[in-house]
Amino acid sequence: MSVITLTTDFGDTDEYVGVLKGVILGINPQAQIVDITHQIDPHDLIQGAVVVQSAYSYFPPGTVHVVVIDPGVGGDRSILAMELGGHTFLAPNNGVLSRVMEKTQIDIIIEVENREFFLQPVSRTFHGRDIFAPVAAHLSAGLEIEKLGPRLDEHQIETLRIPKPEASGSGGITGMIVSIDRFGNLITNIDFKCLNFFCKHDTKQPEFRIGDYRIKGLSKNYASAGTSAPVALVGSRGFLEIAVNCGNAAAFFKVQKGDLVVITLAD
Amino acid sequence: MSVITLTTDFGDTDEYVGVLKGVILGINPQAQIVDITHQIDPHDLIQGAVVVQSAYSYFPPGTVHVVVIDPGVGGDRSILAMELGGHTFLAPNNGVLSRVMEKTQIDIIIEVENREFFLQPVSRTFHGRDIFAPVAAHLSAGLEIEKLGPRLDEHQIETLRIPKPEASGSGGITGMIVSIDRFGNLITNIDFKCLNFFCKHDTKQPEFRIGDYRIKGLSKNYASAGTSAPVALVGSRGFLEIAVNCGNAAAFFKVQKGDLVVITLAD
Amino acid sequence: MSVITLTTDFGDTDEYVGVLKGVILGINPQAQIVDITHQIDPHDLIQGAVVVQSAYSYFPPGTVHVVVIDPGVGGDRSILAMELGGHTFLAPNNGVLSRVMEKTQIDIIIEVENREFFLQPVSRTFHGRDIFAPVAAHLSAGLEIEKLGPRLDEHQIETLRIPKPEASGSGGITGMIVSIDRFGNLITNIDFKCLNFFCKHDTKQPEFRIGDYRIKGLSKNYASAGTSAPVALVGSRGFLEIAVNCGNAAAFFKVQKGDLVVITLAD
Repeated sequence: MSVITLTTDFGDTDEYVGVLKGVILGINPQAQIVDITHQIDPHDLIQGAVVVQSAYSYFPPGTVHVVVIDPGVGGDRSILAMELGGHTFLAPNNGVLSRVMEKTQIDIIIEVENREFFLQPVSRTFHGRDIFAPVAAHLSAGLEIEKLGPRLDEHQIETLRIPKPEASGSGGITGMIVSIDRFGNLITNIDFKCLNFFCKHDTKQPEFRIGDYRIKGLSKNYASAGTSAPVALVGSRGFLEIAVNCGNAAAFFKVQKGDLVVITLAD
Repeated sequence: MSVITLTTDFGDTDEYVGVLKGVILGINPQAQIVDITHQIDPHDLIQGAVVVQSAYSYFPPGTVHVVVIDPGVGGDRSILAMELGGHTFLAPNNGVLSRVMEKTQIDIIIEVENREFFLQPVSRTFHGRDIFAPVAAHLSAGLEIEKLGPRLDEHQIETLRIPKPEASGSGGITGMIVSIDRFGNLITNIDFKCLNFFCKHDTKQPEFRIGDYRIKGLSKNYASAGTSAPVALVGSRGFLEIAVNCGNAAAFFKVQKGDLVVITLAD
Repeated sequence: MSVITLTTDFGDTDEYVGVLKGVILGINPQAQIVDITHQIDPHDLIQGAVVVQSAYSYFPPGTVHVVVIDPGVGGDRSILAMELGGHTFLAPNNGVLSRVMEKTQIDIIIEVENREFFLQPVSRTFHGRDIFAPVAAHLSAGLEIEKLGPRLDEHQIETLRIPKPEASGSGGITGMIVSIDRFGNLITNIDFKCLNFFCKHDTKQPEFRIGDYRIKGLSKNYASAGTSAPVALVGSRGFLEIAVNCGNAAAFFKVQKGDLVVITLAD
């Protein structure tokens, strides 16, 4: 088996994603191609980095993950092939792999240069079709990653500055909404380890402030609040999530990506 | 072959659907995964019930149909595995299988309890990933349904009250728009058997009222009306459909789900 | 291997696309089904024709391309099976294959008539399910195209009048925006051969006028303009494209499909 995942900002209106799959199947007819999402906001590298990190480890070892969020296509940014945790990643060297790299030891990084594995001619505007798809197909068919080009050191890899939660004056922590999912759930950058500090206290419980609203206590699931009531919980990505049971928290709180969430201890 | 279909309200912006597929392929690399739709309106059980009923029988026998519209995730609702008409269904016990059950004899219903076939640990917010996907993969790989948990009786299954057409005073029938498709076609709850009564009359023909508008006669296809003219016909789901030839009936009539359609006999 | 591609205006909210795949897999379990797009604007034959032409040649020879943009479904339009350049196409005879036919020699055209390969009964509203899907499955499984019905001549095929660029008074060329992609890039009907005339001049360079705005020179890629600056280049489909680096040209220029782009030579 050879699974290839695709994460892009191509949307689903144009033929771009279909073309990638055609190129892949022409080279490796056995490839199992899975869409993660093609609805990353155009050029939003942070959203792409979060999605790839949240998804990749649920795929079988040996999967090739192709990430094409590539505002610099055709310019002088390089292209990376990277192995880590038994998975292979293929992405522009623009930081979109930042979050994956943060959590797991990198095994090898290659700069993808060997034109033998590209479509000919290579366009200046669609490397997804001309480079990423054929290289992914060859990798999934067993090509050794080192055939693609020279090794790079980790310090040659671009990284994104993805905001981290910060201590706030009153002994609390200030985090940020980094994504809002289809249900309107607000996913923050506060992970469960960070939450543990607030949840293990003997006599106090965590309080979550978002705008003027306060939510007391961490719940186990959406349904533990009443219908249409707000709730704070650890979401499926392992981060603090603010939701509204059977409702839409983004609409309820009138917030957007980048807005703040503050945790403090209350009696 | 082993086909697994997915019907959810997950949308296509987040990584949720891709993660389901990763989990499935990790367990059963031979699975053929087909998306029915992930654009069910969040938590809309009736829309989900209609879509699953309209789709499932076109798949080969042995297909496993996974339906995750699950507002009660992590609460005390149970999870069902059900066999019926040669197909297997996996869904929360919240009524989303109501329409499938209505039309066909159930062969077996199981409460899915055996944690041996779940991902570990099971989150409180994403049973699609942690329970539905791995269980579907095991079923598609040949697991006997009875290994998943105890049998249930049919009366233990939640059902939705899906509105049915009603006799109206003047010898007519009042139905309801239950869904509006991508083309703006208005799909009602009036099935073709019910229509037959109005269409078999010797001297009169059916008249369809929607708001202040009246459509005379049942047409065979969209194109039998002039361009941009409204038309009533039996749609591909086997129900009365109001459409506008080469146009959008929802926009034309300014109606929405839940609005009424009345049939009477006219000279 | 047997690849089947799907290009439709069905959207992704309803079960229609899933049903097509169910029918196909019931007949040919080995089929590899790839979505090109289901977001063609309802009944937009030109957009469909452009997408199919842009995508098909990237698939392996032998691929069956199913195109269901079919406002005349159930009426008297016929259905075509066509072989060309090693690929097979299945579409209504309504012009949606115009662009594919324009560029490559047709090998054979058949009128699809043989009900033996259709689902029974054939509905009047969903030939995608009842005719296109089963016929595509049989073709992908090796059915000879001539079994489907009688041969047609090329002059029996409907064609669309897709606008071509025209010479304008001042020695320039006037083209038209024929599609706008997900990134807001404006894709015109001016191909690179036509552009060459303006780009090979010794002392002058091409100037692109769109509304009151002028862009000087043809760039190699998006990033060769400053961030948020407009740029003209040859896009991945081989046509002149107007873009905004890291931005949205459709929003920047406030234009839509059908608006004009003029090229002249400037000092």
